[in-house]
Amino acid sequence: MVAKPSASYSITMRVEIQNRPGMLGKIASTIGKAGGDIGAVDIAGFGKDTIIRDITVSARDEAHEQVIAKAVGKIPHVKVVGVSDRTFLAHLGGKIEVKAKMPIKTRNDLSMVYTPGVARVCMAIHDDPSKVYRLTVKKNMVAVITDGSAVLGLGNIGPAAALPVMEGKAALFKEFAGVDAFPICLDTQDPDEIVRTAKLIAPVFGGINLEDISAPRCFEIEERLQKEVDIPVFHDDQHGTAVVVLAALLNALRIVKKKLRDSKIVVSGIGAAGVACTRMMMAMGARNIIGVDTKGALYRGRKENMNPIKEWYAGATNPRNLKGDMLDVIGGADMFLGLSGAGSLPLKGVKKMAKNAIVFAMANPIPEILPEEAAPYVRVMATGRSDYPNQINNVSCFPGFFRGLLDARASHVNQAMKNAAAKAIASLVGARELSEEYITPSVFDVRVAPAVAAAVAGAAYKTGAARRTRKPVGGFRLV
Amino acid sequence: MVAKPSASYSITMRVEIQNRPGMLGKIASTIGKAGGDIGAVDIAGFGKDTIIRDITVSARDEAHEQVIAKAVGKIPHVKVVGVSDRTFLAHLGGKIEVKAKMPIKTRNDLSMVYTPGVARVCMAIHDDPSKVYRLTVKKNMVAVITDGSAVLGLGNIGPAAALPVMEGKAALFKEFAGVDAFPICLDTQDPDEIVRTAKLIAPVFGGINLEDISAPRCFEIEERLQKEVDIPVFHDDQHGTAVVVLAALLNALRIVKKKLRDSKIVVSGIGAAGVACTRMMMAMGARNIIGVDTKGALYRGRKENMNPIKEWYAGATNPRNLKGDMLDVIGGADMFLGLSGAGSLPLKGVKKMAKNAIVFAMANPIPEILPEEAAPYVRVMATGRSDYPNQINNVSCFPGFFRGLLDARASHVNQAMKNAAAKAIASLVGARELSEEYITPSVFDVRVAPAVAAAVAGAAYKTGAARRTRKPVGGFRLV
Repeated sequence: MVAKPSASYSITMRVEIQNRPGMLGKIASTIGKAGGDIGAVDIAGFGKDTIIRDITVSARDEAHEQVIAKAVGKIPHVKVVGVSDRTFLAHLGGKIEVKAKMPIKTRNDLSMVYTPGVARVCMAIHDDPSKVYRLTVKKNMVAVITDGSAVLGLGNIGPAAALPVMEGKAALFKEFAGVDAFPICLDTQDPDEIVRTAKLIAPVFGGINLEDISAPRCFEIEERLQKEVDIPVFHDDQHGTAVVVLAALLNALRIVKKKLRDSKIVVSGIGAAGVACTRMMMAMGARNIIGVDTKGALYRGRKENMNPIKEWYAGATNPRNLKGDMLDVIGGADMFLGLSGAGSLPLKGVKKMAKNAIVFAMANPIPEILPEEAAPYVRVMATGRSDYPNQINNVSCFPGFFRGLLDARASHVNQAMKNAAAKAIASLVGARELSEEYITPSVFDVRVAPAVAAAVAGAAYKTGAARRTRKPVGGFRLV
Repeated sequence: MVAKPSASYSITMRVEIQNRPGMLGKIASTIGKAGGDIGAVDIAGFGKDTIIRDITVSARDEAHEQVIAKAVGKIPHVKVVGVSDRTFLAHLGGKIEVKAKMPIKTRNDLSMVYTPGVARVCMAIHDDPSKVYRLTVKKNMVAVITDGSAVLGLGNIGPAAALPVMEGKAALFKEFAGVDAFPICLDTQDPDEIVRTAKLIAPVFGGINLEDISAPRCFEIEERLQKEVDIPVFHDDQHGTAVVVLAALLNALRIVKKKLRDSKIVVSGIGAAGVACTRMMMAMGARNIIGVDTKGALYRGRKENMNPIKEWYAGATNPRNLKGDMLDVIGGADMFLGLSGAGSLPLKGVKKMAKNAIVFAMANPIPEILPEEAAPYVRVMATGRSDYPNQINNVSCFPGFFRGLLDARASHVNQAMKNAAAKAIASLVGARELSEEYITPSVFDVRVAPAVAAAVAGAAYKTGAARRTRKPVGGFRLV
């Protein structure tokens, strides 16, 4: 499949153009012939007999960016002064900043936010530790912690190379839900050290978002860390994915008029997300799930490529103890959930599925099966991509989820919160809007984060995980 | 001594006042009689026959705040609706926030700052680790790390209670020098764990500011950490204090026309700051320093209340090996440097000093000796307080110092940088401005941070500590 030009591969070319009629048209048609999509065209300056323009062009990939720039450079009387990749430009110097909430311009400002005034605030917290939530950033601050061991689909690239993802996450936390978040990229992949370090830095934070930590280490790290700290710990690759997948799945099931408890579900990829989605589907009633990894179905008695979490998985799922590869177990499945890699669902497999099949092919950037291939045999199809209908994306979950956790001052994350979040997202697609091509709200739907936050906070209060009294804050009194 | 009303103890009273003539005058005179200073008077709203006003008043301390509020509450036809402490108000929800540098409003934005575009940026760093300085926040990000063991003059109050100070520091970094800084308050006071944790979180940061860690642990922690990481480590309580003290001292010596190498200097308080100032004075030429702690002068052979750093101190200073308490050793001293506690320099001691004596009494909030007491016997007097002339404050150093370290991409901190910074600060007081009451620029002098930054960066290049090539960045090219 040939990729379409996209903003993630877009360039801004600075070109110096001789003052002659028709030049811009020549450039535009050259770019079009080379397969580029023209975006903004700005004037950047004037030379003696020239005009300097910045032309933004979307390409398919980095090689294509170069092809386009070269083609433009060959036009007579046009000189390409420079080519900048917009994605890299957007990353120069990083994507987040730490700002003072108030200006510090006078001695009075200084004496309140710093010495000597700050000493009284310190002592107020020392005398009543719960005040740290009132008088510091802890109230609204999340640590985004990674060890760089499983970054996106890129694998174990280490803490420094993972930082752009964590910064992006922090930026999304703030933009989508007003949550302050800070990236912590750990220079260790030892679970003991990760747990210990996260615990030691916890005083500043009201919550911990674990990110891009490889399976099966991630399960142990999350569980142990949650026992060590009194703030909620949420591994987004597990629970964020599970929440958004379940939200879409609940709506997909409405369309095909099937029930979770009666559906046969095949999960491809038994990593962090596969395990979490399975657990969540089971918590919501599913009884017939078969997990498949690179060695085939997980069944009781399998010896190859196992680990403690896969042992659990084999024991808890696959009621008929099916064996074999994907094609051996997918027959009659109502749902395929792919959290693995490109092409891991052959078309043959799709054809074996039950009527009104649901396929979520979440591998990124290339799904387990392409929607255009699967379409004739599938009723509802979703992917992680923005260029197909039904994009399922964690961004719909984590900002609002932490907003709710922080608002309730939750001590931990529980299943009730995740279920409530999934239902809240699903409910934003109204009965009349619901269709095969619209099972989940857009990541830019401004209702999503507040709905998720309210659902999570509500569940926190209902389950006793909330530690903030519900009293309205208002009023005007000595702190 | 009775403190003056100050902004660090100021309240905003919300009062509901009956609509009668002369009421505001009555309130103002009541506040004045109670010893309060009135600041802003705002209208907050209107009742049926009343007006609601917010009156800001500076008080001497918390008890005084209450006295003022009570006095106002007793005025007929006036009701105090609420009293809020402005310092606490300024701390509600913390003093810093983490913001995205660019808005994320469209799918194109999302695909550049997050998935899928971010993957290319991650791989660029993975392929060339030095690019982390170009494409992430590391370039401009400082960790402000404490264990809460020696916070201001408050002692060992722990990591949570220390957070307001670290937030204030982060706010000042940004406001004074455009440096992003983030507070890390560690839930451990074990030096091994502090060093290890700081090392593990280092990938995100371009520098580490150690803060409020007690002596003598701070010396070992700083030294060991600097060996473990390739970014500069700067314990502000040591080096920040030393830089601003030396800057003021260089100018004080110009006034009294004495040389550092010929001066007898008594240092009171052999903690982090006392040791660092001593080392720095020695590095700049001082040869006759006597350190005094609660057990008297540090001399070779002393057994009481020693530790490895005090052993070093006793060996390296006090050339005539003087013994005894402050009064025994201060005779003929040209300079007293107090980094200890209230009242540790008796007036008797001041009287024994040499002609044209210099006294820096830095203890906060109450100095080693009050300026009004010492004045008749001292030529140049400085304190850490804003309500006397010659306020010496670390704020003059650390923002600009880290600006310079980051700009040069320094690998470590060295003496040349500290000397350069002290001289840069001192040089901002021109020969014609220099006087007994003006030996150091105001903390709000906008020239300070750039001057310190340029001096530090310059020294970094000169000493080979800089890792950034001096090439101008400009141009327009593929990253």
